[in-house]
Amino acid sequence: MGSSIGQSPERPVRVGILGATGAVGQRFIQLLEANPWFEITAVAASERSVGQRYGDACTWRLSVDCPATVRDLIVQPCEPDLDCELVFSALPSATAREVEERFADAGYGVLSNASAHRMDPDVPLLIPEVNADHLGLIAIQRERRGWDKGFIVTDPNCSTVGAVLALKPLHDAFGLRRAVITTMQALSGAGYPGVPSLDILDNVIPYIAGEEDKLVKEPLKLLGTFSAREGRVIPADIRISPACNRVATRDGHLETISVELERPATVAEAVEALRAFRSLPYELGCPSAVEPTIIVREEVDRPQTRIDRDAGHGMAITVGRIRPCEVLDLKFVVLSHNTIRGAAGGSILNAELMIARGMLS
Amino acid sequence: MGSSIGQSPERPVRVGILGATGAVGQRFIQLLEANPWFEITAVAASERSVGQRYGDACTWRLSVDCPATVRDLIVQPCEPDLDCELVFSALPSATAREVEERFADAGYGVLSNASAHRMDPDVPLLIPEVNADHLGLIAIQRERRGWDKGFIVTDPNCSTVGAVLALKPLHDAFGLRRAVITTMQALSGAGYPGVPSLDILDNVIPYIAGEEDKLVKEPLKLLGTFSAREGRVIPADIRISPACNRVATRDGHLETISVELERPATVAEAVEALRAFRSLPYELGCPSAVEPTIIVREEVDRPQTRIDRDAGHGMAITVGRIRPCEVLDLKFVVLSHNTIRGAAGGSILNAELMIARGMLS
Amino acid sequence: MGSSIGQSPERPVRVGILGATGAVGQRFIQLLEANPWFEITAVAASERSVGQRYGDACTWRLSVDCPATVRDLIVQPCEPDLDCELVFSALPSATAREVEERFADAGYGVLSNASAHRMDPDVPLLIPEVNADHLGLIAIQRERRGWDKGFIVTDPNCSTVGAVLALKPLHDAFGLRRAVITTMQALSGAGYPGVPSLDILDNVIPYIAGEEDKLVKEPLKLLGTFSAREGRVIPADIRISPACNRVATRDGHLETISVELERPATVAEAVEALRAFRSLPYELGCPSAVEPTIIVREEVDRPQTRIDRDAGHGMAITVGRIRPCEVLDLKFVVLSHNTIRGAAGGSILNAELMIARGMLS
Amino acid sequence: MGSSIGQSPERPVRVGILGATGAVGQRFIQLLEANPWFEITAVAASERSVGQRYGDACTWRLSVDCPATVRDLIVQPCEPDLDCELVFSALPSATAREVEERFADAGYGVLSNASAHRMDPDVPLLIPEVNADHLGLIAIQRERRGWDKGFIVTDPNCSTVGAVLALKPLHDAFGLRRAVITTMQALSGAGYPGVPSLDILDNVIPYIAGEEDKLVKEPLKLLGTFSAREGRVIPADIRISPACNRVATRDGHLETISVELERPATVAEAVEALRAFRSLPYELGCPSAVEPTIIVREEVDRPQTRIDRDAGHGMAITVGRIRPCEVLDLKFVVLSHNTIRGAAGGSILNAELMIARGMLS
Repeated sequence: MGSSIGQSPERPVRVGILGATGAVGQRFIQLLEANPWFEITAVAASERSVGQRYGDACTWRLSVDCPATVRDLIVQPCEPDLDCELVFSALPSATAREVEERFADAGYGVLSNASAHRMDPDVPLLIPEVNADHLGLIAIQRERRGWDKGFIVTDPNCSTVGAVLALKPLHDAFGLRRAVITTMQALSGAGYPGVPSLDILDNVIPYIAGEEDKLVKEPLKLLGTFSAREGRVIPADIRISPACNRVATRDGHLETISVELERPATVAEAVEALRAFRSLPYELGCPSAVEPTIIVREEVDRPQTRIDRDAGHGMAITVGRIRPCEVLDLKFVVLSHNTIRGAAGGSILNAELMIARGMLS
Repeated sequence: MGSSIGQSPERPVRVGILGATGAVGQRFIQLLEANPWFEITAVAASERSVGQRYGDACTWRLSVDCPATVRDLIVQPCEPDLDCELVFSALPSATAREVEERFADAGYGVLSNASAHRMDPDVPLLIPEVNADHLGLIAIQRERRGWDKGFIVTDPNCSTVGAVLALKPLHDAFGLRRAVITTMQALSGAGYPGVPSLDILDNVIPYIAGEEDKLVKEPLKLLGTFSAREGRVIPADIRISPACNRVATRDGHLETISVELERPATVAEAVEALRAFRSLPYELGCPSAVEPTIIVREEVDRPQTRIDRDAGHGMAITVGRIRPCEVLDLKFVVLSHNTIRGAAGGSILNAELMIARGMLS
Repeated sequence: MGSSIGQSPERPVRVGILGATGAVGQRFIQLLEANPWFEITAVAASERSVGQRYGDACTWRLSVDCPATVRDLIVQPCEPDLDCELVFSALPSATAREVEERFADAGYGVLSNASAHRMDPDVPLLIPEVNADHLGLIAIQRERRGWDKGFIVTDPNCSTVGAVLALKPLHDAFGLRRAVITTMQALSGAGYPGVPSLDILDNVIPYIAGEEDKLVKEPLKLLGTFSAREGRVIPADIRISPACNRVATRDGHLETISVELERPATVAEAVEALRAFRSLPYELGCPSAVEPTIIVREEVDRPQTRIDRDAGHGMAITVGRIRPCEVLDLKFVVLSHNTIRGAAGGSILNAELMIARGMLS
Repeated sequence: MGSSIGQSPERPVRVGILGATGAVGQRFIQLLEANPWFEITAVAASERSVGQRYGDACTWRLSVDCPATVRDLIVQPCEPDLDCELVFSALPSATAREVEERFADAGYGVLSNASAHRMDPDVPLLIPEVNADHLGLIAIQRERRGWDKGFIVTDPNCSTVGAVLALKPLHDAFGLRRAVITTMQALSGAGYPGVPSLDILDNVIPYIAGEEDKLVKEPLKLLGTFSAREGRVIPADIRISPACNRVATRDGHLETISVELERPATVAEAVEALRAFRSLPYELGCPSAVEPTIIVREEVDRPQTRIDRDAGHGMAITVGRIRPCEVLDLKFVVLSHNTIRGAAGGSILNAELMIARGMLS
């Protein structure tokens, strides 16, 4: 826990979860239950589940049991008359666009893990440690869309988060020009039921639908510059070439990254930049924030998916094997937990940042 | 089988296997047994096994049973008085250097899968479809080392073969400048017992000792130019940046590759170059050669390790997902079978090429 | 191949496949394509696929490519106007009951892999090596149901086949009273997409819906006595207690079995009984039959799923670790290939037996 | 934590670990570090590691980092001049016998996880919830062996613990006669490096050396009766038939068990007996004890290895699928964590019981 110099809520914020019965929805419940700033007061899901006890509607798949208080909640439809202030959205992209807008229109704050609104010019795509100032888009969003209290804030795709957290300090210190990224992504990234076991046992699948496109575009917005005058984020001038692969791991996306920099950097300088990185939400006292957010390991064979994915309760990323690249400038390996840091945990941290900044009172 | 325009042996060539009890040794036995050009007449291994029946000395691990004729051979020491003309070496690198030299010195042809002599200036590092003319080094090798009939010919590391076979037609057609390669390598690449199961279940290990160095250097020799005048191979002027990873697959190394070319090439032109690639050893009638050696697939999610590794009896490689690279020029995915194409099968094809060329009579 | 003392077809029998696009349907196509007694002339599937080329309708998942001749067939509805004499049914149980009856009623021979009709008193549940005389039920079936040429013959559930093949010679020699069976079943037994990867990575699931009930009942019919007089199979007086588990293997059901016998048997006597077992369909020259059908291994750690599942092209079973049981009389381990011996291959062998017996002319 | 009605130590007991660098040794360190009753003051291992910092000598493999205090300890030889009162032994069986005796002879309490002394008539084989009174053997042990303060207490094999914990309440309530047990055991049970990945990917191995013999014998001693008069444990009159298999899971031994009882029991009565089971060490306030120790689940597909192995911090076992057995009386599924409940955690609980009983002052 950070020393609290930001605001903290007097009483837990009452939150609902959209898409509560799915894999990310369950992760939201597990993390929020243990979070002192929030209280789960509503769960919503698709028609099939509406009206049932959550405990009956949902096949719970985490090894920690479902919290008893949530188990007895009645599943609501995904309509904006939920008993809560904020909603966390774990909706599939197809339905997320319209449903999230209706919630924001009705005055709810929407913290979305869906991809639908990520690239909207007036919607923050947010990693609190990276681009907290992009929250300036909310005023613009409300004005453009005629929303009074409501808003939409999104968090990036699970394969983007680890890469951008590692690239941010290098970009600030040395200027990032180009990056070649190969991912080895975990099964939980495909949701549930997701990848059939027959497809992945003794196999690697060198393709994940839609994934490379997100990894090309999202980092440019995340590392871009918020211009209040222009009312938008000016994307960073970076080129990224991703190759995304599915491997037989449960959680944790491992990525090999080669970067070209504007100013030369030694391995030692890169390590120093990564280690000097400070977490704003940690300094503000956000309960999900960790320090260090970027763990640099020096063992020759780390990070490893299974060993390092839970570092910092799944909210830290681990960088290792930092070394010169024979083709570009430097190369390294990054690991991040895809359903915590890269999904539910990221959305929750976004909400905490807004609370700490006094944007939710 | 190719139409035989090269020579073929009148009777099977009598061969021995050094390191016959290990994982690669067993693969040699399985492949040679089914090969009409060879007859296994000697098996040699470390002291522990010497004097035993091969069937007793060896814990056979392939799903096809050990051939009965080999099972009854008595394991010999790795000394150059084996009853055979050629030896295939599956020795560990530590002992390979000296033992292989002693065999060559005694007049044996040595086809080595070990890394010890690969980068020796007078030793061919050979992929028959790629650089058959490098066999010109043998005359130089014999002269320098004072060998009469014996010789050493090596095949490349398992992670090099697939990459170089895919790069060769692109290099010939468009000129290769730089390549960024990330590998996802199978467990059998580490031999037996190799990777402990506790280390790889639900995990990726982003490091394989010595592997990246080989992938930096070997392709430059393989794609280099044999100069009879200078008596050496002039390495290709290429830079390669590898990142090597171990994943939980049995056989098959999958690699993502981004390349920079001297002359621009569209995806269609690259596909055409790959499809136009012809196998010299196939044209010479070598029994292990296949046509096509390079299979180009157009499905969005191929090659996949388990589905494609056995293509062409494990002697073909599969290339897929050929597309523009946002950072360099083109990118694609390559798969090759690491213990067949990338080890035993490669050595055997090297021997076949020499026979077809009349170099072993 | 056996020495042909049964009949063989003058020209290949023309067959159709019901449920051709699914996992078992694909296995039927792969096996029938290589079988000299059959020619695939029709493929049928659910409405979604009807009218498309098979190659387009089906996501082919076997590592051997789909045969070109089948790829171009147009998928038909599962209605009895297919251009063929026999149909192999890979239908889901829910639809199999009615559809199979309509085909039989229209004069087609139906070889079914579905469970719908297995326990019907007038339908043979057939393993050719075990209870070929149960084909006597067909005359009764036709009479009762008013069918002229058509018929339904079923093969047992994938977890039943291996157990019953191993129990048959013991039952004949020593009289089987009771058996306690624990299965460790492969993923392909659940079809495709089947078991989600997140459910089985690093896990065992001690439950498979409906499986234990089949293992309780089917062996009693298979080992029962056909009474022409009573027009039925009198079930064997045996009690079986199964515990069925799903494990992370692709193909191959491994089972531990403890048996109680009427007459005492030593391990050596049991081995002898298993080794003396002869395959009737092999003697009749059926192309899918193998000899031995029961392989007895003496290594302390065999059979193993991956190493032994393909024995006899997947049509043999492997028995090992035969030893005294501290509670009942003997115990051992059995392995069988669940999608070949236990599904498509079993149905095909049933058809071959009927051809060899002259029942299909 | 239980309500403390037993004794608790005034200051942490100073303990050493024999075989500290191996897999079980590491688990001891992780568990002891978090345990308020113990302080690690010595680590000992084989000659190869002696004299090095523990952090250097050991390749730490748990995902929680090695405690800093232990990392700086210098590894000692396994000789009885360690600075501690108790030693936990994670020695291989081959060396355990003699080394453990020398420690006991020198006055150390030895809590052993090795099999060497388990079946010695004067050595307690202890599960605190099951047979705490067997500690009465210590007086006899000391007298026979001429030991003053020292002693040896062992915990059972990892595949025995779960079975016996589940069988104990059934034996007490209904009388156990016979049990047929099939295990599906995790990789960590074989230690490190243990099972090669090539042996277990896509495989089940139906054999674990020595395992079945332990499962035949150990339960009889554990469920036997301590006779002070005879100075020994009279073994229970039970017959057990085990079949032990290795499957591809990290931790957690799953077992299917069929039992024959002296007095008939319905499923409901068996459930009631299991649920009524109380933990003596929990009542005594032992920090590693949990309540319930036996978790009974009613879902049709539980316990599952990955989901349930960590129940009760790995110290509880989970029983499910309790149902009638067609051959014996009842059958069910048991899961226990093999390196916590079945190894290090079990030894620690043994020590806690002795402390709580005032046997270590």
